[in-house]
Amino acid sequence: MSKTLSIVKIGGNLIEDVDKLHEILDLFAKMDGSKILVHGGGKKATEVGNLLGIEAKMTNGRRITDAQSLEVAIMVYGGLVNKNIVAQLQAKGTNAIGMSGADGNSIVAHKRPVKPIDFGFVGDVNAVNGTGITTLLNAHFTPVFCALTHDGKGQLFNTNADTIASELAIGLSGDFETTLYYCFEKKGVLNDISDENSVIQHIDSEKYTKLVKERVIADGMLPKLHNCFHALQNNVKQVCIGDHTMLENSSSNYTKLTL
Amino acid sequence: MSKTLSIVKIGGNLIEDVDKLHEILDLFAKMDGSKILVHGGGKKATEVGNLLGIEAKMTNGRRITDAQSLEVAIMVYGGLVNKNIVAQLQAKGTNAIGMSGADGNSIVAHKRPVKPIDFGFVGDVNAVNGTGITTLLNAHFTPVFCALTHDGKGQLFNTNADTIASELAIGLSGDFETTLYYCFEKKGVLNDISDENSVIQHIDSEKYTKLVKERVIADGMLPKLHNCFHALQNNVKQVCIGDHTMLENSSSNYTKLTL
Repeated sequence: MSKTLSIVKIGGNLIEDVDKLHEILDLFAKMDGSKILVHGGGKKATEVGNLLGIEAKMTNGRRITDAQSLEVAIMVYGGLVNKNIVAQLQAKGTNAIGMSGADGNSIVAHKRPVKPIDFGFVGDVNAVNGTGITTLLNAHFTPVFCALTHDGKGQLFNTNADTIASELAIGLSGDFETTLYYCFEKKGVLNDISDENSVIQHIDSEKYTKLVKERVIADGMLPKLHNCFHALQNNVKQVCIGDHTMLENSSSNYTKLTL
Repeated sequence: MSKTLSIVKIGGNLIEDVDKLHEILDLFAKMDGSKILVHGGGKKATEVGNLLGIEAKMTNGRRITDAQSLEVAIMVYGGLVNKNIVAQLQAKGTNAIGMSGADGNSIVAHKRPVKPIDFGFVGDVNAVNGTGITTLLNAHFTPVFCALTHDGKGQLFNTNADTIASELAIGLSGDFETTLYYCFEKKGVLNDISDENSVIQHIDSEKYTKLVKERVIADGMLPKLHNCFHALQNNVKQVCIGDHTMLENSSSNYTKLTL
């Protein structure tokens, strides 16, 4: 298995900033080998939802995706954000092709069980169709995934973009030596949350357990890293967490996770 | 050249009607051989635009696509309508993949010249990238195109769906024996516009000239048929015009155009 694959997930906040998005897409376009981009949606969906008079519904502080919110997600993530990223990548010489989980039946999901909370049209992933995506990669397409999946029976779902990225990485690790990059605002996992320069360069399973015990990894970082180690335990070669500068070849100031 | 390709364009009005859309997609899913679906957008874009407070801008009775209207088109055609059709086709066993002209750099266009009227972000097609689309078709994907193109420099455009369909047919006729189907509300080109049963079954170039002279073909039908003969003159094998029932194998009550 000699072919490498890079899967890059960029968060919603990075997409809001037009200049930063350009910069990220420039770096992504320059990456060698097969690659996939996964993007979140950012505040645009909330903005459009508000303009359309759709109130964000919350239960116990968690967002609910009702039928109208799903329509907005499909319009904004699947349409506006996805097509603009595809057009910009094409301008940078990358043969991007926009995808949801329905396209090419690439990510099949089921509606999240309604207990204890009914999240509405939120999908939990069953399976990634590696064959179809591998066909696209081998034909030198660069898939750009938005955070939508489907149930194979005509229903689309909202699905967390971090999950989409890790499931894709797991599903494709049979065919590729896969590295998963999570781009966000910080330079990586920090030893001291108040010190941006305290990036922990390498975390393996043992160190991970220790950092969780010491509560260095806590709050929002916990599910994120849990997701990363889940991917590593399922044949993904490595996971990198940091800001977009980690996509540069020369960069080393980010957190690298291995088993 | 033994491989056949069917390109089916369905109009916006047909998409509005949920039951009819199901029926059309059922027939499309059952068609043999390589196939492509092209869809318009229907009134949903106007509805969403109105809800977002975007006024439809007109000059001399022609619709102008300003930056905001383009955003709505990308959301509604490229997102909502496209992804829902893809998910429904997947449920019917067709391996659909949603596309705009930016995806896979499949349709490159330029901004329509601003004189005599500046239509805004409306694109006139330069070229169809047959290679990429043929790769998808040979890998048993069924592309579903919305009516968006791009300039290869990061700009998306609104482009007429009839034009997208005929340009795709022309661009792929080097690799496939191509039939182009235009589905609309009527059973075909009518001899007597007040008689739905007066469908002209076959029109060749000679008869076309005659029908135009006799003003049997007039008004909205003129540019439509001009478009069809343009495709035929560029190696498309045949063009069929009628309602969706023409997609059934057994059907014969529609208008077939050949050179």
